[in-house]
Amino acid sequence: MTSDSEPRRRFREYGLSVGLLPPGPLNAITDVPGVRVGQVTLMEGEGVRTGVTALVPHGGNVFQERVPAGIAVGNGFGKLAGITQVQELGELETPIVLTNTLSVAAGLAGLIEWTLRQPGNEDVRSVNAVVGETNDGLLNDIRARIVTPEHVLNALEIAAEFVEEGAVGAGTGTVCFGWKGGIGTGSRRLDIAGEPYTLGALVQTNYGGHLHICGVPIDLPPPAQNTGDGSVMIVFATDAPLSDRNLTRLAKRAFLALGRTGSYMANGSGDYAIAFSTSEKVRRDRQKSAVQHTADLPNDLMTPLFQAAVEATEEAIYNSLFKAHTVTGQGGKTVHALPIPEVLERVTHPPRSHP
Amino acid sequence: MTSDSEPRRRFREYGLSVGLLPPGPLNAITDVPGVRVGQVTLMEGEGVRTGVTALVPHGGNVFQERVPAGIAVGNGFGKLAGITQVQELGELETPIVLTNTLSVAAGLAGLIEWTLRQPGNEDVRSVNAVVGETNDGLLNDIRARIVTPEHVLNALEIAAEFVEEGAVGAGTGTVCFGWKGGIGTGSRRLDIAGEPYTLGALVQTNYGGHLHICGVPIDLPPPAQNTGDGSVMIVFATDAPLSDRNLTRLAKRAFLALGRTGSYMANGSGDYAIAFSTSEKVRRDRQKSAVQHTADLPNDLMTPLFQAAVEATEEAIYNSLFKAHTVTGQGGKTVHALPIPEVLERVTHPPRSHP
Amino acid sequence: MTSDSEPRRRFREYGLSVGLLPPGPLNAITDVPGVRVGQVTLMEGEGVRTGVTALVPHGGNVFQERVPAGIAVGNGFGKLAGITQVQELGELETPIVLTNTLSVAAGLAGLIEWTLRQPGNEDVRSVNAVVGETNDGLLNDIRARIVTPEHVLNALEIAAEFVEEGAVGAGTGTVCFGWKGGIGTGSRRLDIAGEPYTLGALVQTNYGGHLHICGVPIDLPPPAQNTGDGSVMIVFATDAPLSDRNLTRLAKRAFLALGRTGSYMANGSGDYAIAFSTSEKVRRDRQKSAVQHTADLPNDLMTPLFQAAVEATEEAIYNSLFKAHTVTGQGGKTVHALPIPEVLERVTHPPRSHP
Amino acid sequence: MTSDSEPRRRFREYGLSVGLLPPGPLNAITDVPGVRVGQVTLMEGEGVRTGVTALVPHGGNVFQERVPAGIAVGNGFGKLAGITQVQELGELETPIVLTNTLSVAAGLAGLIEWTLRQPGNEDVRSVNAVVGETNDGLLNDIRARIVTPEHVLNALEIAAEFVEEGAVGAGTGTVCFGWKGGIGTGSRRLDIAGEPYTLGALVQTNYGGHLHICGVPIDLPPPAQNTGDGSVMIVFATDAPLSDRNLTRLAKRAFLALGRTGSYMANGSGDYAIAFSTSEKVRRDRQKSAVQHTADLPNDLMTPLFQAAVEATEEAIYNSLFKAHTVTGQGGKTVHALPIPEVLERVTHPPRSHP
Repeated sequence: MTSDSEPRRRFREYGLSVGLLPPGPLNAITDVPGVRVGQVTLMEGEGVRTGVTALVPHGGNVFQERVPAGIAVGNGFGKLAGITQVQELGELETPIVLTNTLSVAAGLAGLIEWTLRQPGNEDVRSVNAVVGETNDGLLNDIRARIVTPEHVLNALEIAAEFVEEGAVGAGTGTVCFGWKGGIGTGSRRLDIAGEPYTLGALVQTNYGGHLHICGVPIDLPPPAQNTGDGSVMIVFATDAPLSDRNLTRLAKRAFLALGRTGSYMANGSGDYAIAFSTSEKVRRDRQKSAVQHTADLPNDLMTPLFQAAVEATEEAIYNSLFKAHTVTGQGGKTVHALPIPEVLERVTHPPRSHP
Repeated sequence: MTSDSEPRRRFREYGLSVGLLPPGPLNAITDVPGVRVGQVTLMEGEGVRTGVTALVPHGGNVFQERVPAGIAVGNGFGKLAGITQVQELGELETPIVLTNTLSVAAGLAGLIEWTLRQPGNEDVRSVNAVVGETNDGLLNDIRARIVTPEHVLNALEIAAEFVEEGAVGAGTGTVCFGWKGGIGTGSRRLDIAGEPYTLGALVQTNYGGHLHICGVPIDLPPPAQNTGDGSVMIVFATDAPLSDRNLTRLAKRAFLALGRTGSYMANGSGDYAIAFSTSEKVRRDRQKSAVQHTADLPNDLMTPLFQAAVEATEEAIYNSLFKAHTVTGQGGKTVHALPIPEVLERVTHPPRSHP
Repeated sequence: MTSDSEPRRRFREYGLSVGLLPPGPLNAITDVPGVRVGQVTLMEGEGVRTGVTALVPHGGNVFQERVPAGIAVGNGFGKLAGITQVQELGELETPIVLTNTLSVAAGLAGLIEWTLRQPGNEDVRSVNAVVGETNDGLLNDIRARIVTPEHVLNALEIAAEFVEEGAVGAGTGTVCFGWKGGIGTGSRRLDIAGEPYTLGALVQTNYGGHLHICGVPIDLPPPAQNTGDGSVMIVFATDAPLSDRNLTRLAKRAFLALGRTGSYMANGSGDYAIAFSTSEKVRRDRQKSAVQHTADLPNDLMTPLFQAAVEATEEAIYNSLFKAHTVTGQGGKTVHALPIPEVLERVTHPPRSHP
Repeated sequence: MTSDSEPRRRFREYGLSVGLLPPGPLNAITDVPGVRVGQVTLMEGEGVRTGVTALVPHGGNVFQERVPAGIAVGNGFGKLAGITQVQELGELETPIVLTNTLSVAAGLAGLIEWTLRQPGNEDVRSVNAVVGETNDGLLNDIRARIVTPEHVLNALEIAAEFVEEGAVGAGTGTVCFGWKGGIGTGSRRLDIAGEPYTLGALVQTNYGGHLHICGVPIDLPPPAQNTGDGSVMIVFATDAPLSDRNLTRLAKRAFLALGRTGSYMANGSGDYAIAFSTSEKVRRDRQKSAVQHTADLPNDLMTPLFQAAVEATEEAIYNSLFKAHTVTGQGGKTVHALPIPEVLERVTHPPRSHP
């Protein structure tokens, strides 16, 4: 099913880097304290190449202790569930689940089941489950809708600090610039007004265009169709105390990184970014009904976070490509892993086509 | 389960009317040629008081022959699935399904299954299913999530011209201004630049506030909690050849009618309107890939349609209340039908409280 | 120029009322502490029937001490300047100026001049002036663009607690439902979680439709064209500590009140609402650059404010009609004042057209 | 006032290129038939470094023969006037004027005057003038507000095919990545479904970040402050027959190009894109009031235009930097021209910092 077996390392392990800010210790979204990621990878027979990736904002009851959040739509040709309530109330009341396009129903069912089951939620009768997707229908027999609510529950239950990358979870069957894409993550540390903060990104890459890595066009003929269609989901977490409005602004910066990698946000690419803050100073306690005292990083201090968002997204995208192995799926179709040696050759010896 | 058995008639059958434009022959959304409505009502034991209402835009393959559409969000505290793709591409590629808040997953699963099954859709790998909801958790044991994809398939298959109103389909367990609400419909006929058009509305009423009927405050103590929370879904169909932008504008007018009935769009009320055009002159054929020749009613001719939208929505809301019987549900809770004689007394003898 | 001279009183002075919440002592937007309104009325010769209305959020330097704010667009066929920055940053940095459609440039010039002149603003090089408008081109020779920046400065300088209503300021030449409209105001007091708050509304009415007052259709033939086109600007102030997101939601409720009065939001009607909070707990100090400590009324406590917004808007609209005298303008065109006795007759003896 | 006198050539004249699509004959927005650009450059004394750039969509009466248009907001910290009406009605009824932040009032006044004066507009009483800006307050004594309506009229009157670039018109005083920015333009030719189309871009660059050219980081210490704040206005014209919705989508792609050049869309950067179609098949005749017959390029054919938008924007930005001379302005502050030899050295010999 995966035809190459050599170990694939992360982008930065090859000595490459992107941006100016330093990554966190894991260089992962889980560098933001409390954030955990759980993934279920479904690779069975010839046609099952899909899965679930779940992001849990914190270790408590997310429905009762909500986190402020914002969502930006780069190109809305996608099926992101839960968006209007996040935009209206400015908060997440569930984890975020990513899966394939035709399995959003299973994602919702699992995430709702998980929320209803949690101790303290016995009276809950409304759940705004946030489920994103990209379309893995090239490698995966997507019409079979193999993902079940149990897979979602499982991903949520095993959520941990370590984030596996590449052809795993919701990225098992995705394709990026004609190469095997998947899940990638990255983080940045920064200081604002003397306070240290972390921003992390996680991506599910399934989009295309004209691939650039570190600004260098990668003129390798991709093995699979690269119409630009496909989609990408991007999630940001930060411990900076942000309002939902500034989280929405933060989310919007994700698309700048897409541009850097060579995307045109093709018609068929559903491109979304979701950002949330884990800061306890902005946590929303559902039990309290009086004026809340909260913290707020002012508008004019946001720029370093915007920079971190762009950098972390770009690196997370590269990680998704660097870590993904070749995958053969339905109908014997194969999407090859990005050939790292050739990429490194180009990145370290960029073309001198210009006089 | 329903404690009253006298026949309940529609608003207009009591000699009442609202607005200036005439209704269509059915005074229903199905006055718009091609539109059909199918409903599955689930009333079982003490706790099941819910269902499914499906709106089919036309008799063909909706995925292959798309209709332009727009969505307006009055208050986004709801779970409407499919919204971003409708906004991005300006079209519906599935029927619209309404159900309860925790059954959106079943709604999606059923609507996707239906679309994948349709002849001609064998290669379809992406479906933007549009599923709206309101929360019937007062009367219905909503946490049991009794709605299945098969119920959705059934509603789609039995869709027809006749629209049952009141405590049926997705309105089986809903509450409106503390009285039993449910499904209602209405229509208006109008001429624009010498051409006759029809606009129809269908509502799923589950919201509150301070009830007014025909502008008269209905100062009857409602039997159930009326915090204003709850939600309302509003769907418009028209045969006027409208762009998706003007359909979005049309949808936005729905909330004016909410205001007339006494809504404040309470915090907890997820209020949405979806509008689509059935005109064949704006139909989008998925098979064609070249510049399309289309028709467009200009901006400055839209006002009569806006008026029709407000009038049809207001009447549809009244129909949902007039037709709904008293329903007793989970835990023996009863939501009474609006007492029509008392309402008629007030509407025909409005208070003279003002000097 | 004004053909009637009898004193015209406010809506409530005739014993009428709307809604359930009590008004503040002035029943004006200036019941919100710190808010002041200044107006310049331009009535000269046959053709000048226009003016300026300025709303000042508080007595300090608004540019340095910003107020959170939100804007809602009912129908964007208007020229509201400054909207995107308010939406992006969630704040007002100037007062709000209302004038006529072709005088937005003068409004901006005056508001910018005023801001640059204020002590403490010597280094200011960017000003987001918020200027709204409606089109008084029926009575006013709008193409003459008679409003100057000096008129705007004057309106700002004379801003005070008392709000004159009717055919004054930016409402001098406006038309509402075919009758003379203009400036109106109203307020509501309410308690949330034991804390008392005030919400005030100010409107500039120039729109149409099918006039209802207190829910009663006013079937008097209006003297002027009533196509529904025209526009309305609505401003809310409150001392409740609201986030910009909840202020945006609050603004959105204004259109429910438009619906109650009989508007269809006609194609040509530019309908906007702006809401801001004067609470010092949410004031934004431009000098401070560190995490701010702020207050926030949670989402689930918003409903009473939504109700207050609808009620205050409806009453402000009635005040604009009740207080406006008949005005004759360019080309001898006359727009008559709403005939209060006939209106009172209808409101207190509503039609019994229904059996 | 400009301390360097050597001729500065366009980006492509140095043998550089960006993207895959070919430019039009002028490599300018005026490659789109009918589009003209007029500029007034104000450089006087020490402190006047500003101007006006006007874009005229076609040679007819734009108010009577409107063009469909869309606007995208990257970061709304700007003062773009006219946005809501373009979004609501999907059309431009005036040319587009660009100037400095505190001169939007003059821009509006001039554009309104021009529109009122045009033969055939004698009855026009409402004009939605579209005026964008960036802040040239570093070099320009922006508080003096030197731009007058006459400057705007002049720019409109001299509009022609040739587009001067660099420190001219609305770009006279702007700063980009700490170097002298200004006006730049570019275009792309493409085929869709066998039909040839042209897309052109014009930019007013005044933003910052971490400059990349052709993907290569330009690690030259910029001479001026480069906080990232500042803003950029981007305008697209195309002769493809697009709906306003697809024009809005097209506009959104501009920000991908910003990302490629190294922008983070800093907090203080007001970043906007406006797109319009000049195709006569989508032209909107104000005189006609009946259903219009129009053309529409379907969603699934949009991707090549999205690619063209990204490429043309990136090249237009480079042209703005390559063509801008060093400018010394108020207080003797100097912003240096981008040193082309050093840039070429880096672009053609990218760093080998990676192993």
